[in-house]
Amino acid sequence: MKFQDATTKEIDDILAEAWQAFGVYRRTGLKQRADLMRAIARGLEAAGDQLIQTAMRETNLAEARLKNERTRTMFQLTSYAEACEAGHWLEARIDTAAGGDPDIRKLQVPLGPVVVFGASNFPFAYSTAGGDTATALAAGCPVIVKGHPAHAETSHRVAAIISEAVSEAGLPKGVFSHVHGLSFETGKALVTHRYTRAVGFTGSYGGGKALFDWASQRPQPIPVFAEMGSINPVFLLPGKLKESARELAGLLAGSVTLGTGQFCTNPGLILGVEGEELDLFVRELGAAVANVNPGTMLHPGIAKAYTDKREAALSQAGVTTVAVAAASPKENQGVPTIAAAKGEAFLRNPLLHQEVFGPYSLVVRCKDMAELTSVAALLEGQLTASLMATDRDLADHPGLVEAARDICGRLILNNVPTGVRVSLAMQHGGPFPATTDSRFSSVGADGIKRWVRPVAYQNWSDGYLPDALKNSNPLHIWRMINNNFTQDSVEALEGPRLGASTAKPPNETPNSVGR
Amino acid sequence: MKFQDATTKEIDDILAEAWQAFGVYRRTGLKQRADLMRAIARGLEAAGDQLIQTAMRETNLAEARLKNERTRTMFQLTSYAEACEAGHWLEARIDTAAGGDPDIRKLQVPLGPVVVFGASNFPFAYSTAGGDTATALAAGCPVIVKGHPAHAETSHRVAAIISEAVSEAGLPKGVFSHVHGLSFETGKALVTHRYTRAVGFTGSYGGGKALFDWASQRPQPIPVFAEMGSINPVFLLPGKLKESARELAGLLAGSVTLGTGQFCTNPGLILGVEGEELDLFVRELGAAVANVNPGTMLHPGIAKAYTDKREAALSQAGVTTVAVAAASPKENQGVPTIAAAKGEAFLRNPLLHQEVFGPYSLVVRCKDMAELTSVAALLEGQLTASLMATDRDLADHPGLVEAARDICGRLILNNVPTGVRVSLAMQHGGPFPATTDSRFSSVGADGIKRWVRPVAYQNWSDGYLPDALKNSNPLHIWRMINNNFTQDSVEALEGPRLGASTAKPPNETPNSVGR
Repeated sequence: MKFQDATTKEIDDILAEAWQAFGVYRRTGLKQRADLMRAIARGLEAAGDQLIQTAMRETNLAEARLKNERTRTMFQLTSYAEACEAGHWLEARIDTAAGGDPDIRKLQVPLGPVVVFGASNFPFAYSTAGGDTATALAAGCPVIVKGHPAHAETSHRVAAIISEAVSEAGLPKGVFSHVHGLSFETGKALVTHRYTRAVGFTGSYGGGKALFDWASQRPQPIPVFAEMGSINPVFLLPGKLKESARELAGLLAGSVTLGTGQFCTNPGLILGVEGEELDLFVRELGAAVANVNPGTMLHPGIAKAYTDKREAALSQAGVTTVAVAAASPKENQGVPTIAAAKGEAFLRNPLLHQEVFGPYSLVVRCKDMAELTSVAALLEGQLTASLMATDRDLADHPGLVEAARDICGRLILNNVPTGVRVSLAMQHGGPFPATTDSRFSSVGADGIKRWVRPVAYQNWSDGYLPDALKNSNPLHIWRMINNNFTQDSVEALEGPRLGASTAKPPNETPNSVGR
Repeated sequence: MKFQDATTKEIDDILAEAWQAFGVYRRTGLKQRADLMRAIARGLEAAGDQLIQTAMRETNLAEARLKNERTRTMFQLTSYAEACEAGHWLEARIDTAAGGDPDIRKLQVPLGPVVVFGASNFPFAYSTAGGDTATALAAGCPVIVKGHPAHAETSHRVAAIISEAVSEAGLPKGVFSHVHGLSFETGKALVTHRYTRAVGFTGSYGGGKALFDWASQRPQPIPVFAEMGSINPVFLLPGKLKESARELAGLLAGSVTLGTGQFCTNPGLILGVEGEELDLFVRELGAAVANVNPGTMLHPGIAKAYTDKREAALSQAGVTTVAVAAASPKENQGVPTIAAAKGEAFLRNPLLHQEVFGPYSLVVRCKDMAELTSVAALLEGQLTASLMATDRDLADHPGLVEAARDICGRLILNNVPTGVRVSLAMQHGGPFPATTDSRFSSVGADGIKRWVRPVAYQNWSDGYLPDALKNSNPLHIWRMINNNFTQDSVEALEGPRLGASTAKPPNETPNSVGR
């Protein structure tokens, strides 16, 4: 299948349609949104093998991996649907009238049309029907996906499934749109369009930063959550290394080469203190990685970028090649590789801090824990940081623990960074340049927060309040009433109310002096 | 007193000190932060009349108003201190290990040094010890305040009170710093400094937008919450207008002229449908405002800006002057003024949509409810929108209610916008250009969210988790455990745990396929 780049006129029509649809979709109940999301999940399943085959052909990913990813995508849709209905994300707060202060109630409302740019390495879970789309639909926002050119047909098919679910739900078709575009002009037109209210992106630093800049420079700036690169440092602490050098080597060899290293949580940097335990670890890691076969990468562009960046890294002063996969690579395959360098060499060479997207990791041999800690403190923002440590190690090196936490969104103990659990407590994000806003996550139901804003209702008439804020709590959600968490109605806490307070003259009571 | 602009070297030293102090302050317990905030509140009280006199001299605000504002500032500090200790803002979430998925726990951590730019119209409540400073201290962030040049001495004195409280708490002095600066260079140096992690601002559109642009264009962009201008539209609905034209006129005359109109929530735009009720309202409003005396404005710059913008608005085609205060203004006084225009004239003239900061309001006479609704939909982002409406009005005009909500952060029924209650349910913010990020508030304890980011701990050792995430819940805070709100310990819900799960190989279970 061949796809045409969307024209400016097409993009304008699509956004106008999304804007119109927003007026309808925002008024849907939580259950209706959740039902739509569940219908999309069912549609993905019903698409059966044909969808998997299309994705295999476009991405070179294995069948089992793609089936798992589709299942994950369905789980995201259904678990975020549950979260949508549970309504914690509405952050309903009620402060009843008191001492001359008016009744104030607050909830989250959707921002408006969200433009989503999916990832090449996750054709299902972080693309067309992925986490950004699912959380935006839960929030009440229409979605416009720009299909990734590397899996345009997969994206096209998934988009058709979503559009079908939208149509069967009796919702306007502008609730979901899909456009193709090879040129950066398509992305720019989407992000700078006056009806676009927010942007979600998963991909490279260059791509994400360009979207962020366009969005910030609009006459009316809009928020962008771009998840960009990460090298996911793994810190080997002395006690743990002494105990389990071999086990750690096996664990990390698996994580570095999993899926030909094409994960944003791939551990691209492993740090330890020089000594015989580290030597043993490096030998074992090298031996394990040498036994892993090269894998075909997502597309020729990614394969070429891997080859180039790997070459550049290996040719830096002070960098030695520890191990390269024994088997010869075929065209567009990534060669599993382990390199090593001293702490000093790493500290003075910014190129070594950059992501080499693929089955590559650099072991940094620090001369002592002080140098290791200073390397940790100097790293840029990361999605994850992992500590391989005993409790004794943690007690002995609090400075390193703190430095590792400061640079990341997820701090892992004795697990590898690959594998991102989809649950509320997950944080998939991190300080710049891991993402453009460290305050948000793209995994877990808290991802909904990216697409909503609070609105407070003051002195409102109960019958005309949104259901989430009505006295009787018809949605049975958790709310904070006068600073207490409760599922009770306002009446249960306060006794029957006589209706909203009446208009009062501007007051000057301490808590609400005019502003 | 004369103050020198901080030099680049001084700013660099101050930020280095703040960064150092961050390492200590972030480790303080919630009670210690709350105690610091309460000590600052006591210090403001102990400063007695001398502080009020200084502020009166610098701002021309009346004694009673400044005393009320100080009380409000103390209330902010003590109520945000309570919120700090209650810990809801930590958003602690725990998902215990299940089906091969690892234990994940998340909480909010402070971003780092926050630079605060206070407002000229609130020398206490939105300046040096104001809401931005209080919420940042609650979050665990050091604060650097740039004192407002219009009340430099007041700011200097308040800063001394804060520094004294920091010192008495045994905390490093870098927890709070204060700099002076007349030139925009000072602000730019603060916002672009590598150790600055976030910015809070209350003031003009020009000032806030410049900070936002500098922050977005840094090599490492940082979040800016800038509260800028707002004209706070008030919509008079037909039923309510028929019932209470006189009462509404009195209410709005008070709100427009309160504090010589120097509030960011001042109702600068009043909209109704042509007819005898609106004529009556306008006559009564005009008569009431004509009786209000001109007041001395905050400083000559603000008085001149008011005079100029008022003149410009009154000279636009189709704008008539309804009423001007009968008494003649003295130097630097703002003259209470009501103007009027037809909906058509308003729609085609963007100048009339701009804020005229002072005791001024424009009544827009729309030809029907359709025109009124289309005006509402075309307005820029606002802090507030007010509806003066009966329940019947709300039922008859859902489109207007929705349009009004879409443009604002706070939707008010039958109250005037001046008067901002300090409570959790308050939203003081709104779509651009009311603020630079509609997803946050500068009033209420949710203001803390501006200065924090989530960090997830995966597979962590209980003894080394932050207290907020430990199994036993030693802080007794509300947490979400496996998607349920609870104050219980993890053991109470799950039975005794045998310690963290051990390291597992990278898994491919549906919920955590490698990323």
